[in-house]
Amino acid sequence: MDPIKITDVRTILTAPARSRLVVVRIDTSDAGLYGLGCATFTQRPLPVKAAVDGYLRPLLVGRDPDRIEDIWQICYQNSYWRNGPVLNNALSGVDIALWDIKGKRAGMPVYQLLGGKCREGAAVYRHADGREPKEVEDRVRAFAAEGYRHVRAQMGGYGGQTQRVQASTAEGDSAPGDAVRAKWSIPEGAQPGVYYDPRGYALSVEVLFDHLRSELGFDVELLHDVHERLAPIEAIGLAKALEKHKLFFLEDPLAPEDVEWFRTLRAQTATPIAMGELFNSPHEWTPLIAGRLIDFVRMHISQMGGLTPARKVAALAEAFGVRTAWHGPGDVSPVGHAANLHLDLACPNFGVQEWFGFADAEQEVFPGCPEVRGGYMYPNDQPGLGVDLDEQAASRYPCADGPDGWTLTRRPDGTPARP
Amino acid sequence: MDPIKITDVRTILTAPARSRLVVVRIDTSDAGLYGLGCATFTQRPLPVKAAVDGYLRPLLVGRDPDRIEDIWQICYQNSYWRNGPVLNNALSGVDIALWDIKGKRAGMPVYQLLGGKCREGAAVYRHADGREPKEVEDRVRAFAAEGYRHVRAQMGGYGGQTQRVQASTAEGDSAPGDAVRAKWSIPEGAQPGVYYDPRGYALSVEVLFDHLRSELGFDVELLHDVHERLAPIEAIGLAKALEKHKLFFLEDPLAPEDVEWFRTLRAQTATPIAMGELFNSPHEWTPLIAGRLIDFVRMHISQMGGLTPARKVAALAEAFGVRTAWHGPGDVSPVGHAANLHLDLACPNFGVQEWFGFADAEQEVFPGCPEVRGGYMYPNDQPGLGVDLDEQAASRYPCADGPDGWTLTRRPDGTPARP
Amino acid sequence: MDPIKITDVRTILTAPARSRLVVVRIDTSDAGLYGLGCATFTQRPLPVKAAVDGYLRPLLVGRDPDRIEDIWQICYQNSYWRNGPVLNNALSGVDIALWDIKGKRAGMPVYQLLGGKCREGAAVYRHADGREPKEVEDRVRAFAAEGYRHVRAQMGGYGGQTQRVQASTAEGDSAPGDAVRAKWSIPEGAQPGVYYDPRGYALSVEVLFDHLRSELGFDVELLHDVHERLAPIEAIGLAKALEKHKLFFLEDPLAPEDVEWFRTLRAQTATPIAMGELFNSPHEWTPLIAGRLIDFVRMHISQMGGLTPARKVAALAEAFGVRTAWHGPGDVSPVGHAANLHLDLACPNFGVQEWFGFADAEQEVFPGCPEVRGGYMYPNDQPGLGVDLDEQAASRYPCADGPDGWTLTRRPDGTPARP
Amino acid sequence: MDPIKITDVRTILTAPARSRLVVVRIDTSDAGLYGLGCATFTQRPLPVKAAVDGYLRPLLVGRDPDRIEDIWQICYQNSYWRNGPVLNNALSGVDIALWDIKGKRAGMPVYQLLGGKCREGAAVYRHADGREPKEVEDRVRAFAAEGYRHVRAQMGGYGGQTQRVQASTAEGDSAPGDAVRAKWSIPEGAQPGVYYDPRGYALSVEVLFDHLRSELGFDVELLHDVHERLAPIEAIGLAKALEKHKLFFLEDPLAPEDVEWFRTLRAQTATPIAMGELFNSPHEWTPLIAGRLIDFVRMHISQMGGLTPARKVAALAEAFGVRTAWHGPGDVSPVGHAANLHLDLACPNFGVQEWFGFADAEQEVFPGCPEVRGGYMYPNDQPGLGVDLDEQAASRYPCADGPDGWTLTRRPDGTPARP
Repeated sequence: MDPIKITDVRTILTAPARSRLVVVRIDTSDAGLYGLGCATFTQRPLPVKAAVDGYLRPLLVGRDPDRIEDIWQICYQNSYWRNGPVLNNALSGVDIALWDIKGKRAGMPVYQLLGGKCREGAAVYRHADGREPKEVEDRVRAFAAEGYRHVRAQMGGYGGQTQRVQASTAEGDSAPGDAVRAKWSIPEGAQPGVYYDPRGYALSVEVLFDHLRSELGFDVELLHDVHERLAPIEAIGLAKALEKHKLFFLEDPLAPEDVEWFRTLRAQTATPIAMGELFNSPHEWTPLIAGRLIDFVRMHISQMGGLTPARKVAALAEAFGVRTAWHGPGDVSPVGHAANLHLDLACPNFGVQEWFGFADAEQEVFPGCPEVRGGYMYPNDQPGLGVDLDEQAASRYPCADGPDGWTLTRRPDGTPARP
Repeated sequence: MDPIKITDVRTILTAPARSRLVVVRIDTSDAGLYGLGCATFTQRPLPVKAAVDGYLRPLLVGRDPDRIEDIWQICYQNSYWRNGPVLNNALSGVDIALWDIKGKRAGMPVYQLLGGKCREGAAVYRHADGREPKEVEDRVRAFAAEGYRHVRAQMGGYGGQTQRVQASTAEGDSAPGDAVRAKWSIPEGAQPGVYYDPRGYALSVEVLFDHLRSELGFDVELLHDVHERLAPIEAIGLAKALEKHKLFFLEDPLAPEDVEWFRTLRAQTATPIAMGELFNSPHEWTPLIAGRLIDFVRMHISQMGGLTPARKVAALAEAFGVRTAWHGPGDVSPVGHAANLHLDLACPNFGVQEWFGFADAEQEVFPGCPEVRGGYMYPNDQPGLGVDLDEQAASRYPCADGPDGWTLTRRPDGTPARP
Repeated sequence: MDPIKITDVRTILTAPARSRLVVVRIDTSDAGLYGLGCATFTQRPLPVKAAVDGYLRPLLVGRDPDRIEDIWQICYQNSYWRNGPVLNNALSGVDIALWDIKGKRAGMPVYQLLGGKCREGAAVYRHADGREPKEVEDRVRAFAAEGYRHVRAQMGGYGGQTQRVQASTAEGDSAPGDAVRAKWSIPEGAQPGVYYDPRGYALSVEVLFDHLRSELGFDVELLHDVHERLAPIEAIGLAKALEKHKLFFLEDPLAPEDVEWFRTLRAQTATPIAMGELFNSPHEWTPLIAGRLIDFVRMHISQMGGLTPARKVAALAEAFGVRTAWHGPGDVSPVGHAANLHLDLACPNFGVQEWFGFADAEQEVFPGCPEVRGGYMYPNDQPGLGVDLDEQAASRYPCADGPDGWTLTRRPDGTPARP
Repeated sequence: MDPIKITDVRTILTAPARSRLVVVRIDTSDAGLYGLGCATFTQRPLPVKAAVDGYLRPLLVGRDPDRIEDIWQICYQNSYWRNGPVLNNALSGVDIALWDIKGKRAGMPVYQLLGGKCREGAAVYRHADGREPKEVEDRVRAFAAEGYRHVRAQMGGYGGQTQRVQASTAEGDSAPGDAVRAKWSIPEGAQPGVYYDPRGYALSVEVLFDHLRSELGFDVELLHDVHERLAPIEAIGLAKALEKHKLFFLEDPLAPEDVEWFRTLRAQTATPIAMGELFNSPHEWTPLIAGRLIDFVRMHISQMGGLTPARKVAALAEAFGVRTAWHGPGDVSPVGHAANLHLDLACPNFGVQEWFGFADAEQEVFPGCPEVRGGYMYPNDQPGLGVDLDEQAASRYPCADGPDGWTLTRRPDGTPARP
């Protein structure tokens, strides 16, 4: 097989559904051979584009795309500062695109390069939200009826019931119903923002799961995402209180800044823990895995540096009895979802895959999206990742400017809070 | 801005309400520019006054008041022995007065110097006591009706039901009602003192909170202060037993001498813990914070050395996911309460502020007291701390002589106990 | 003092000396009142600019610039992913500019807001490099003659002698002289890059310091920067071997990815350790400080989020007996150097300040640069940080495009290495 | 690419050089497509053959050879007892053969599937033995002259000077010269065996390295293999005594049974440690790696289960700053050496590769052997591992029967010792 060279590296921004997606395309000297990688950082797409276009492109053009490990290391170290968002996203886009190219070069789906399938499909979990327990129950039942075994149950959005403050009045944004504490005051002159009450939220989760297990029994696997909305000791209290409900896992009970609190949590409860969608660096995941302090790693493959570090983390986790549950929200492109899936199929310690469904416009822009049938996600078995990008279609869905509003969260007394 | 000098340092003692308060006033070469600091040590005011007048005044006159850190270090080390009460109170008075001066020099409230507000008001907690559960419940309801969300519930004073011994007979001082074990014998010839029964007290707390949660539900945040009245393993047992009642925090469950027991407590329960009003030295708070063994620091800013160490401890606590709940009892002057408040507004890891209300006489002596409305405390936004001292009014409320009686506590067999 | 609003946030790129500098300017509704902050990330300036212009500007315009802590938290959390380069640099630029504004509003140098001076000037260390021991010795002597007490001694650049590979031949780039092992082979077909030999480098450091201490004695404080160029166990070996030479500190002996190795290092040697210019997140510095595993923190204030987190880290370090030695290379703007300096003057646990000197063009672009006399750096005592930016002059020194070459390092066998 | 099936699994035994080699050949339904794997266990070849032919062959025929991970798990768990020699060797042979097949299917060398090259060649180390220091020195010089940078220096075989006992007399087998303690008595009636003296051996190593460093300086990287011949505390003492000689690494200082002693060793010395050729199970390597107690892993890929676990261990080691130095003695077939090499080229944390050279007969039996030039080993870049097996040639070098003699070792008093 003749050596080839990278001839171009480009960034494509598109928003066919709600999220701003960032895709990296790498072209090669083998006419028609190119790869696609997901570099999505939906809150900050433009700095990612600037990093790829201004620094990685000139570093990569002319190199051999088969030397993925070498290229990964060079990109990683060339910025001197490393292990953070933006640069990690840019690197992820490049890395995933190189694996796509290698698969196409080999004539094999990427999972073959990663050791081959050790399962046929990846079990996915869906997200059921509602304003009161009965509404959540109905959505869980609907997913179960479609064949999903794993459902994440939330009530009132992340952090539960919120109040949106505009002027000096506070108005309920979503109300989880009578079962939950609904009243808390905000001080005079409160700054605008989305207010939520950590302790009221924690109480509402107990109410929700008491209801769900009482009505649904244990035939469906239930998950819940704390989304770092509690103080550490409150998260520990909630994990303990939910232990009887036997969650499949409790997601992100602590903020990344507080992960050392897992030692205390772990001493007190057997509720399974998933963590990591916000992790940027090995300092975050390695001690949790090696300390057996969590049960599932949930990093964002399009943010942690791509498949190269992800497959190594999967191996690390396997050594310590920890499973994978890679982050798979709406702000991952179908290319990124395919990367998740190919790794899911090849790792013996796969746990479950988050998935939100693809909008029609996403399927229009990204031909070859993985398919979900009966609760399992399947690849299309084309060489590489199997997902393409129709740039003309992509251009019909331009990205909006500016910062996200939903992350401007505050606690009842006005304290800026983790989103 | 021209440099100025300290021209005088004075101590003012006054007792407009029950507590003996100690305030330090620092005058400067800028006519009319002075600062006030709280140096209150209500049990031992005279040694504090002796320390300020005899040792800090001569050390400080002629120095530049803008060099707060430098002055703090000089005062701290000049006594050679350090990190204890009396000298710490004297230093606190000086330090807080210097921050007051700096704020006035800058034309800014002190919270501006500390980084600016990250909330509008500081949520406060009130103290509800009663002789039996229903009485406590009524007081909690009364506070809630005034807009307070956080209430500390006690029954029968610190340590619960007490008996005051004069001669050879013991007489009940306060009775927690039928639901609680009410009788315990005192040996013949018992010494005079305030007797209490640690184990009976612990039982009564469970009875109290069973009642409160059953009647009030979870709409109000409940706190409780053990006030170091239990043996370590009993405190751990109580913290566990109360876990289902989801206290906002349990205060001072252990004596300062026993803080290493927190490791055991922490392995067993998720009840949030607040600790530290009696702490004198970093040896007490640093390991608890760095070990994530408590959830709230509660040191007495007027005793720990003032705002200079307090803002550093707040930063230390922030690094470990620990929040602040600075000590704010009646034996802190309004100047000290203002210092608490200004720090509360500027720290992202503020938790809650203890507060007992200001008597009319206190407001007369200290114009500019912070105000509480709807459960939140607000500053008046004058430059500096915003609280003045009317010395003429202060002189109308002289301090009593001699030791406090309430700290002469004993256990049923006559053993002297922690107060 | 009337509240004001932020009216504009802009990014200025300029390269008056070798480094590409990024400065953030914040304008306010108080005509003529603006602040400057350093957001320099010399390897990746454009993504920083994209983050400020595209996301922080719309988030900040209209807000009260006095609420620094609130703004810091909002910027920090709004991107959801956080604690990495690019976004941290952008946030640093904003945060430092807000402190500059607050100082100007107060009419005070920023060190006054941080607690006031507890020293008059900050001792700085200089960088002496040479190809052989005698040449380094001469440069150290030259610095000492100028009054510098602290000098960092290097021989042959970071990692010692290097070979630059273009085609199939390797050619010596800089040679540290006969005293050092000079030969190592590179495999056939080696990729282009800057090759260095970790083990040969480590040996050369011992040779260098044997020479320097033998010739110079202990009157000058010597430092050395390993620049993460050794395997962990080799770095430990070097720290041990140098113990007899009593360095002021050994800098960055380990890569950020390997900091857990400090436990082993610390068990074996008393060589003082400085660490952290590459740190992005609290996960890196907090455990090292709280574990007392290093002696000096060296984070890049223009990269870690600005003065707000830096003053908190200084407080954290003070609690554990760790001193500050903030990163101060050529790729920090004079605004950033001023931020370092103001913090240096106010922290009791200041250690030493890195400094490279200002080129004439830098002083032209940045009027008000701090001055160094007799080994100490002094601020100019204007309100705020005291450094301005002449935008017209700045525009005469545009930034170059593309990635840096010096970070493309490899070990003798071709392995990509940390830069 | 059409799915294929495994049609046959066979074991080939051959001994073209001194060692008995075991190779597994897997044939597929794609005519002419087969793979080769090394399953060598030179001390016990027949049970390995029995395991492959009797149990793995029937398990594998008919399966899809692309599903390597799935097949690995099935073979691993099917024996119920696992993680030991014999079965691990059999599994290694199968696994390596499957990677060979996958590379051929992809038309790529195996290193391409593992992420691509991040270096051109793998630095190898050679083995220099001699009876006295001068003789060892000469052999080291000879290797250096051939371009080798890394040489393992031994004197008198593993464990140093030995005495072979036949009847009641002891006769010196190899003598390390006058410089070393040469005399130790053996009790009357000693059993036959190879006697060695641990403490005399340890002393002789110091003598050897004093000589080598004095004569050779530090231009050559020296290694030494203790081969588990010392009591734990003696090994720690030797590692400390050799620290000044800056070994590249000290190999197997402790027996696998004693690895917990590494904590003590690590607290005392910075001599780099390599360990693991005898390891069978993750219980041995995982704690040493995660505890950063060693610097190089040295497992035997043909014994630990093949490339599938080896690449995972490489990823695990990378997370902890540990490098690879896979076991590469004479009792690894050229197929196994190729597996080592392909992994060496793709792992960023490769350290060094052991290598003994290929005899002419080995090259005759195994066409396509990797080549060593200038101290680096290079693959031939054919698809798969690039090494074939000429079965006709192999049959000309049949394996001997029976046990090895060299592992019948005893200490001076007759105690059976680790070999």
